[in-house]
Amino acid sequence: MILVYDINQKRVGKMLKLCRRYLHWIQNSVFEGEITAVKLKELLATAKGIMHDYDSLIIFKSRDNKWLEKEVYGNEKNAIDTIL
Amino acid sequence: MILVYDINQKRVGKMLKLCRRYLHWIQNSVFEGEITAVKLKELLATAKGIMHDYDSLIIFKSRDNKWLEKEVYGNEKNAIDTIL
Repeated sequence: MILVYDINQKRVGKMLKLCRRYLHWIQNSVFEGEITAVKLKELLATAKGIMHDYDSLIIFKSRDNKWLEKEVYGNEKNAIDTIL
Repeated sequence: MILVYDINQKRVGKMLKLCRRYLHWIQNSVFEGEITAVKLKELLATAKGIMHDYDSLIIFKSRDNKWLEKEVYGNEKNAIDTIL
């Protein structure tokens, strides 16, 4: 799945830390990875506790692992970013 | 397809304007929509001209239109945002 958020600067650090616990960080506010339904529920519950006002979180899920073709242009977050 | 970018503030206005010509704006730096190969090539060529330094652009494409399940939490960009 892909997760993208748009979170107020005051809360973005918390959200980044949370999402990195479950997914790979691939761009400023974009994450990808495979996650179980239970883990996703956990992630969303915590995320909802962080979010306020105009904060937004979008998830794209697919039924098939092979659906996704990703193309990266310009700078890509280094693999080391995903190590906690 | 889904397009996400991470562009320096100096150039982000240009990029937003460009992407909105081709796709629907669904979050701060996230767009989605269907686009022909020709239009995508056009979009990417122009985007590359805008991008510098640490700017980044990621595209997620699928072979099947039905692959995508989207969930939105919190604030969603209003439909009026997609009208040019």
